[in-house]
Amino acid sequence: FSLKKGDYELKIKGLVQADLRYFLDDFNPTRKAAPVESDRFNDTILFRRIRPTFEGSLGKLVGFRLTPEFAGDSATIVDAYLDAKFDPAYTLRVGKVKGPVALERLQSGGSTNFIERGFPTELAPNRDLGVQLQGDLFNSTLNYTLGYYNGTADGRDATSSDGDSRKEIGARLFAEPFKNSPGILQGLGFGIGSTFGSKEQGEANSGVAATTNNFLPRYRTPGQNVFFQYNTARAAAAAAIGHTGIYADGDHVRISPQVYWYYNNLGLIAEYIRSEQEVSAGVLAAGAAASTRATSTVTESFTNDAWQVSASWVITGEDASFRGVAKPKNAYTPGGPGWGAFELAARYGELDIDDDVFNAIPGTAGGAANSFANPNSAASEAKSYGVGVNWYLTSNLKTQLNYTNTSFEGGAAGGQDREDEKTIFARFQVAF
Amino acid sequence: FSLKKGDYELKIKGLVQADLRYFLDDFNPTRKAAPVESDRFNDTILFRRIRPTFEGSLGKLVGFRLTPEFAGDSATIVDAYLDAKFDPAYTLRVGKVKGPVALERLQSGGSTNFIERGFPTELAPNRDLGVQLQGDLFNSTLNYTLGYYNGTADGRDATSSDGDSRKEIGARLFAEPFKNSPGILQGLGFGIGSTFGSKEQGEANSGVAATTNNFLPRYRTPGQNVFFQYNTARAAAAAAIGHTGIYADGDHVRISPQVYWYYNNLGLIAEYIRSEQEVSAGVLAAGAAASTRATSTVTESFTNDAWQVSASWVITGEDASFRGVAKPKNAYTPGGPGWGAFELAARYGELDIDDDVFNAIPGTAGGAANSFANPNSAASEAKSYGVGVNWYLTSNLKTQLNYTNTSFEGGAAGGQDREDEKTIFARFQVAF
Amino acid sequence: FSLKKGDYELKIKGLVQADLRYFLDDFNPTRKAAPVESDRFNDTILFRRIRPTFEGSLGKLVGFRLTPEFAGDSATIVDAYLDAKFDPAYTLRVGKVKGPVALERLQSGGSTNFIERGFPTELAPNRDLGVQLQGDLFNSTLNYTLGYYNGTADGRDATSSDGDSRKEIGARLFAEPFKNSPGILQGLGFGIGSTFGSKEQGEANSGVAATTNNFLPRYRTPGQNVFFQYNTARAAAAAAIGHTGIYADGDHVRISPQVYWYYNNLGLIAEYIRSEQEVSAGVLAAGAAASTRATSTVTESFTNDAWQVSASWVITGEDASFRGVAKPKNAYTPGGPGWGAFELAARYGELDIDDDVFNAIPGTAGGAANSFANPNSAASEAKSYGVGVNWYLTSNLKTQLNYTNTSFEGGAAGGQDREDEKTIFARFQVAF
Repeated sequence: FSLKKGDYELKIKGLVQADLRYFLDDFNPTRKAAPVESDRFNDTILFRRIRPTFEGSLGKLVGFRLTPEFAGDSATIVDAYLDAKFDPAYTLRVGKVKGPVALERLQSGGSTNFIERGFPTELAPNRDLGVQLQGDLFNSTLNYTLGYYNGTADGRDATSSDGDSRKEIGARLFAEPFKNSPGILQGLGFGIGSTFGSKEQGEANSGVAATTNNFLPRYRTPGQNVFFQYNTARAAAAAAIGHTGIYADGDHVRISPQVYWYYNNLGLIAEYIRSEQEVSAGVLAAGAAASTRATSTVTESFTNDAWQVSASWVITGEDASFRGVAKPKNAYTPGGPGWGAFELAARYGELDIDDDVFNAIPGTAGGAANSFANPNSAASEAKSYGVGVNWYLTSNLKTQLNYTNTSFEGGAAGGQDREDEKTIFARFQVAF
Repeated sequence: FSLKKGDYELKIKGLVQADLRYFLDDFNPTRKAAPVESDRFNDTILFRRIRPTFEGSLGKLVGFRLTPEFAGDSATIVDAYLDAKFDPAYTLRVGKVKGPVALERLQSGGSTNFIERGFPTELAPNRDLGVQLQGDLFNSTLNYTLGYYNGTADGRDATSSDGDSRKEIGARLFAEPFKNSPGILQGLGFGIGSTFGSKEQGEANSGVAATTNNFLPRYRTPGQNVFFQYNTARAAAAAAIGHTGIYADGDHVRISPQVYWYYNNLGLIAEYIRSEQEVSAGVLAAGAAASTRATSTVTESFTNDAWQVSASWVITGEDASFRGVAKPKNAYTPGGPGWGAFELAARYGELDIDDDVFNAIPGTAGGAANSFANPNSAASEAKSYGVGVNWYLTSNLKTQLNYTNTSFEGGAAGGQDREDEKTIFARFQVAF
Repeated sequence: FSLKKGDYELKIKGLVQADLRYFLDDFNPTRKAAPVESDRFNDTILFRRIRPTFEGSLGKLVGFRLTPEFAGDSATIVDAYLDAKFDPAYTLRVGKVKGPVALERLQSGGSTNFIERGFPTELAPNRDLGVQLQGDLFNSTLNYTLGYYNGTADGRDATSSDGDSRKEIGARLFAEPFKNSPGILQGLGFGIGSTFGSKEQGEANSGVAATTNNFLPRYRTPGQNVFFQYNTARAAAAAAIGHTGIYADGDHVRISPQVYWYYNNLGLIAEYIRSEQEVSAGVLAAGAAASTRATSTVTESFTNDAWQVSASWVITGEDASFRGVAKPKNAYTPGGPGWGAFELAARYGELDIDDDVFNAIPGTAGGAANSFANPNSAASEAKSYGVGVNWYLTSNLKTQLNYTNTSFEGGAAGGQDREDEKTIFARFQVAF
């Protein structure tokens, strides 16, 4: 829907997703000796996204986009940016944008093959606040983004104001060399995204509590359950007995090569990402009273990585694309002959945690309680496969049904493997 | 206001209510020995509803509605649903909708006779997340709804994601048999709504704190003050000394017969509702240390019920209806002769709590602190009458003035009755 | 952008501001002996305002405006009101509006000379909930506002529902006597705004915790850092050991004479404001156990005041105005010759705290911990100057760059002066 006034234009769009989530065999994911009702994952009906979008251009120079999100307990903003469109080759964009790193992350939330994105997205920045220069070069065969951001933890959105003074540089190059040449390679695109920055959460011996969760990531399965996080028990203790928490403290670098290829009704999308972050832990000197501040700090650098391959096949013959199936050939109408478009999808991915993260922190008594991450609750590796069917009834109404299975290495009591996560997710989506 | 594009349509609507609330003689509602300033109810000016609505249809099949609420401290979503309109007799609706139980609850917040709804609404679900099939049969003389929901506590909205894995089935039949036959009974409608489900909040002896407030209801007066809740003091203690809290734990069933009748400028609306919920309390064995977990659990089923009758008379002669007065015959205009429409309204209602809820929990030392609800702060019955005048200046601007008086049985210190609540509420409403 | 239906009209507007904030020499503002990383002010990129506006008129009588704010962590409402426009000379406005006191406060957030407003705004109410009568008299040369509000602390918005039963009366008269007579004085306006009310936050010896922050103000620099607040340490202790907190408790009166003058491309705006508030502190009798309630209360009245003068010069020759530069003569276009409009601005202001606020509370042991405000963290005076340049690229796109320097009297450890605050702020703003 569109409103015009001279060369001003305001477009109103919307994306609403209602999801059903079921978990199978989920009674005791961390294999507790005495599991209880609330250890289970709750089956639930929920809104995943409720996003009206106001997008506009004010003359040739100025553009903007505002997308609030109403799906959670309180409304917030997901996309909000202002463009100064000097030239197609260089646009200055200021605001809250998706970090220019991972590929599936940059797909619209209404266009992904699967209901939930996979592992590489967990290591990439979600949305960040910043200033970026972007543009299309060489007849749109090369797209670049170069930005300066507040910086976020892996898999997280930026908070509304930065929690430290350190910033992050992000850059991405993505080429579609055959974009203008019809043929088997026309739909091929590949590129690389990266961020370089630093996080400074606090100081272990400073008298300022360092909480694990602000700048350090937690990683989730495609079922949206956390399977890895840094040692929060240690951080919680910090508030009471000194500053022995674990916190992001230094360089943070991500790099992600990526590729997609769409040919007729087939699609393939693959990416790899690694994220390296310096992490510190406060240490009490032997014999120091528990209430004193940490007397020294241990800093280590951990590297986590993830990759994923996903394929899709539109069995009704429409073209596959990075934006999903745009328009079914025979849309479903009440009483009419059409049944819409059907697409099958499959994917496989892995996320591997740096093994050193489970070692005892030097200078401590050791054991699970004194490691950067607790091996009895945080898994060291997750592997996930999924299959799905997407039914596009009309160009506005899409339903999705997914089965995913994720298995783990470690992460459960006594060194066992965390219980497999098996999910059935369904989605009912209207977009316009 | 409406935007069109082909057979797509987007409508923008709005409802804004600014209320003034005054409480008379409200110095010591629970008759404390030493009442203090903050025991009083605060007189206040507030926004009751700020609800823009985006409603649309995308071709014949797909419809949607999004209504955010901006009246509280942070914005949220009240109505959000997606429709697949296969046929007028069966539409599939997915999203956040009003639970299909109580009658006044299903009236629009801008159309009720009184500024605040009465007691039956307190026992019905507010809005719930789910999937429902609905439609009109027999020339629109019979409306049905059948749904599958996350399930909510009485008088509450669903949270954005379900707190347990148990679900709720809801159903409602409502007949207007003479809808298409002009005459004295044309405006008669009657029906029955019901929910069947289960709540599983936690386990008393599980090591998981069970908090009273998530799945157990509190009931409010038409003045919006809580006069009944389960024993939160016991639940609060639970966190510290074990798991002796009180929590929803089992079947939850509601049933509500209901009727309205509109004839010319007169309206009558009546309903009854009962809500039965299984509730558990954790119990410590005699001599057990206060810090140990509850050693056993007591489960009881409590039945609360409410009813209400409300009448309205449009003294300027316009037709009364379930949607209020649609359009004054002589709207008020600055300097013009019209004064709009005036309507008088009266209502009476009662809410009766199951008396067993105030008994001592078996296996405990007894007393107010060891009952499911504390008789010194929770009333066992409330009776309320109200009178009001509604002035429709134009079809968009409505003001309301209400007086309500609510008296109680019990609920104050030492077995006394809670002080009567007397309110004067005024409303200034714009809707379009 | 505008939608019409008969004599109904809905306008959609928007204001988005993305800011960059840098702090210079900010390592130890309160001169702590061992300053730490988090004592610094965080350099950050942030959204300052994301405000779509829905404004409309429904026939001649009814008007409304809704402006949600999406810039923070959760969306809320900033402006929301309903108008009954009986006559240009008297409109009844109900809702959430800017308090009718300070002058710069009443400027739109997109039109101020500087990125952040100055000291007088800190003593004025921000937005309040209430009912006000307003209008233009004598050919629009005199504007008046008379209102009845919930009442807010200085520099704060009203909460969504009043925290006490006390209300506030506000009034403002503003004259532009030469508005209709072209000449050097045509752009001269002056007036006076005031509020009279009372706050009743709690009772020190009541068993109800009195928290300092609800009704008592904190004052911020133009860099948005708090440099004065009442003794929160004392209030925090209150929760644990009795009710010795500090709280608003009695009359609150503000008065503000104000003037602006715009002549061709020059602008001048000046205002003074004083705010007087009765404040109480609970006191323990000598020898009373720390856990007992305050045995008596000390109430004092404190008067804080602020003033500011700000000048602007549009060097490209466009008219200066209370609403900024409306339209550059030669807007910037990509590749075109125009560069937009440039404006220079300067301002100076002071905020002076009542010195008595730092005295020991009578009946206590004295010292910094027993004063209404702690002289080691709260400054007694702040003086700030700033210079800025505003670049209006088009009538929709504005950028601003400011330097401000604020110096303090007191407010740091051991009676020293708080470190000067030096800021560089930049803004990128789109408004339509």
